[in-house]
Amino acid sequence: MRCEVIAVGSELLLGQIVDTNSSWMGEQLALAGIDSHFQTKVGDNHIRMAIALRTALDRSDAVIMCGGLGPTQDDITREVIAEVMGVELVRDEVIESRIRAMFGSRGRTMAGNNLRQALVPAGASTISQMPGTAPGLVCPMTGPYEGKVVYAVPGVPYEMKEMVAGTIIPDLQQRAGVTSVIKSRTLRTWGQSESGLAEMLHDEIERLDAEPGATLAFLASGIEGIKVRITAKAPTEAEADEVIAAEEAIVRSIVGDIVFGVDEETIEYAVIDLLRERGLSLAVAESVTGGLIAARITNVPGSSDVFRGGVVAYASEVKYSVLDVPRGPVVSAEAAEAMATGVCRLLEADVSVAVTGVAGPTAQENQPPGTVFVAISIGGEVESRQLRLPGDRQRVQQFSAISVLDMLRRRLAGV
Amino acid sequence: MRCEVIAVGSELLLGQIVDTNSSWMGEQLALAGIDSHFQTKVGDNHIRMAIALRTALDRSDAVIMCGGLGPTQDDITREVIAEVMGVELVRDEVIESRIRAMFGSRGRTMAGNNLRQALVPAGASTISQMPGTAPGLVCPMTGPYEGKVVYAVPGVPYEMKEMVAGTIIPDLQQRAGVTSVIKSRTLRTWGQSESGLAEMLHDEIERLDAEPGATLAFLASGIEGIKVRITAKAPTEAEADEVIAAEEAIVRSIVGDIVFGVDEETIEYAVIDLLRERGLSLAVAESVTGGLIAARITNVPGSSDVFRGGVVAYASEVKYSVLDVPRGPVVSAEAAEAMATGVCRLLEADVSVAVTGVAGPTAQENQPPGTVFVAISIGGEVESRQLRLPGDRQRVQQFSAISVLDMLRRRLAGV
Repeated sequence: MRCEVIAVGSELLLGQIVDTNSSWMGEQLALAGIDSHFQTKVGDNHIRMAIALRTALDRSDAVIMCGGLGPTQDDITREVIAEVMGVELVRDEVIESRIRAMFGSRGRTMAGNNLRQALVPAGASTISQMPGTAPGLVCPMTGPYEGKVVYAVPGVPYEMKEMVAGTIIPDLQQRAGVTSVIKSRTLRTWGQSESGLAEMLHDEIERLDAEPGATLAFLASGIEGIKVRITAKAPTEAEADEVIAAEEAIVRSIVGDIVFGVDEETIEYAVIDLLRERGLSLAVAESVTGGLIAARITNVPGSSDVFRGGVVAYASEVKYSVLDVPRGPVVSAEAAEAMATGVCRLLEADVSVAVTGVAGPTAQENQPPGTVFVAISIGGEVESRQLRLPGDRQRVQQFSAISVLDMLRRRLAGV
Repeated sequence: MRCEVIAVGSELLLGQIVDTNSSWMGEQLALAGIDSHFQTKVGDNHIRMAIALRTALDRSDAVIMCGGLGPTQDDITREVIAEVMGVELVRDEVIESRIRAMFGSRGRTMAGNNLRQALVPAGASTISQMPGTAPGLVCPMTGPYEGKVVYAVPGVPYEMKEMVAGTIIPDLQQRAGVTSVIKSRTLRTWGQSESGLAEMLHDEIERLDAEPGATLAFLASGIEGIKVRITAKAPTEAEADEVIAAEEAIVRSIVGDIVFGVDEETIEYAVIDLLRERGLSLAVAESVTGGLIAARITNVPGSSDVFRGGVVAYASEVKYSVLDVPRGPVVSAEAAEAMATGVCRLLEADVSVAVTGVAGPTAQENQPPGTVFVAISIGGEVESRQLRLPGDRQRVQQFSAISVLDMLRRRLAGV
């Protein structure tokens, strides 16, 4: 089963928006075991969209078109699919009344254009997940592309994700001849290389090969760590869940405490959850990361439960005067530890993380770029560590951030 | 002249890396007046790369392939282009000696694989910009694609950008029949809508249409503002520069102080430059933006000249105790002003920006999401403003950041 992705929108070609939707879909398809060999971006142009769709159908079994389902005259994905199917657009009464109801409940007036969103190619069905006003479509092909399928989803990320996960991936797996239920769970890890993880899990993977139950796959995800995906196929959902739970226990017993989260849980989620459970408040003191850690933490909804705030002590003088760092070198374990202590005191927090170091491009205090000291403080107990990180300025900042958050996670979890 | 972009790399399809290179190239092509109707991602697979390249050449005049020029066996862009050209790969002696010299000067041992990078399709030429060990290629097509051209550039962003700007865009413009020199400059603006700008510049655009010299184009760039691109065509580079300078003066006289930067200068650059010129130091106090402003400022190399640091006062108690905000509502002009004053005092800075507000998704102090108060302090003089921003949590944070930085820019520049 091969499925291509076509992202629709002139703003994508003009570089006004970066196409992150296709990347996300690519990851989901890979994790579901569906091959995706080509991804295409095309503008809001009927002829070129039809060319892109036919080109994709010529070489693959399924196509997901993302974008162009809005209410304006620019939004022509419906029309293009109908043309390639060789059918007319017909009004879907159920969708029409849902759109009317949505506008009614929000007290907004509906423009006539919005009813264009109730048009679907004859023979297509709508996707049951519909968080916005744009219905997603499942369009079984006829004629020369008989047996193939085109899906249409909106370009709004959360709408797209709900439809891909809820309908399209299961539908693709079913079309791929999978009659049983396939479910999966992703364990997020930090602290091991991909080859290190593969080595740790080598015997288990061999066991699974011989005695099928679950399967394991690795996905290196840069500063988000390495993901281990557990996939299970079973006659029922409950049985699949059981297989996954059993396999998760085995994987965790082998790789241990490097697992920090499941599915969409980033390291910030893990840290915030642990703090909330323990009733502890958090502060951050940042030099080299310049506000990045605070920004990542405040991106998590509900972080205000535990997050007091932070101090970005970029100038050495601010480290000395605001955080009581002893005068002297600021790229040092002593400075990191003093920052961690100082920010707890200043912001009256129970717990803190602190980072100081050299992001580059030039050396500082004779330390080369990539030299970073991180510290954590929990209830007054301070611990620090030196890191030597590869890469450019941004990579050093990002790796510093996840490294110190993982250090805090381990201490809080007692692992 | 139509030019497609093909991004090569299995990691792009798998969603491990988001393809920002194609977005950047799309923007450059648009600004240079070259149509780009399709962009494709394909994995490191010989057959599928050749399919993608032939598909692109069937419908366009030029193709930029990005990635797959490294030294490993996975890097096969050279081989694929040679096959589609119907030629052999030949060793380029000049490139080979440059690669040997690079390794020599860095004191690194060269793997035999690195010499693969000196192979070029017969008839192709190398791009003179070569910041890494991978040469870029200009490959004039023969046979069925006679008259068309394929470019190959590395996937490393800074290497790619140098080659696209230095060689590929000028080469495309020349092939498009432009015999004179084309140069351009982008003015970045904040504070006007695209249609507002178009209205302001309407008469000037009409004048240019009638009496050609420079041309103007708009490019809406989200939270980076709206760009006005001035392009000039002239017999020589000096004359083109003259035309651009004259047109820039006219545009600036019409749109005035909404221009904050030129070409790659973001609003942070503008603010840091102004502070440096005036010998002033900066601090930031952030609530709703959670560290984002500090992180943007510290992303600018050399920001340490002026940036003291910041306080992320996320909890109300931190606003009261650390920044001396009077007890009471924290989503208010008074709180923003007190934050601006307090952080100047605490961090001993001359100038500050402060932001407090509601990012959403829920209301706070009965204020709806998107309600934001920003303040700036210069030498003790404080000024605040209320913003009502559309969009989700991240958009509110981003718009708050650029709005307050632009407010500071205007005050510093006295405009």
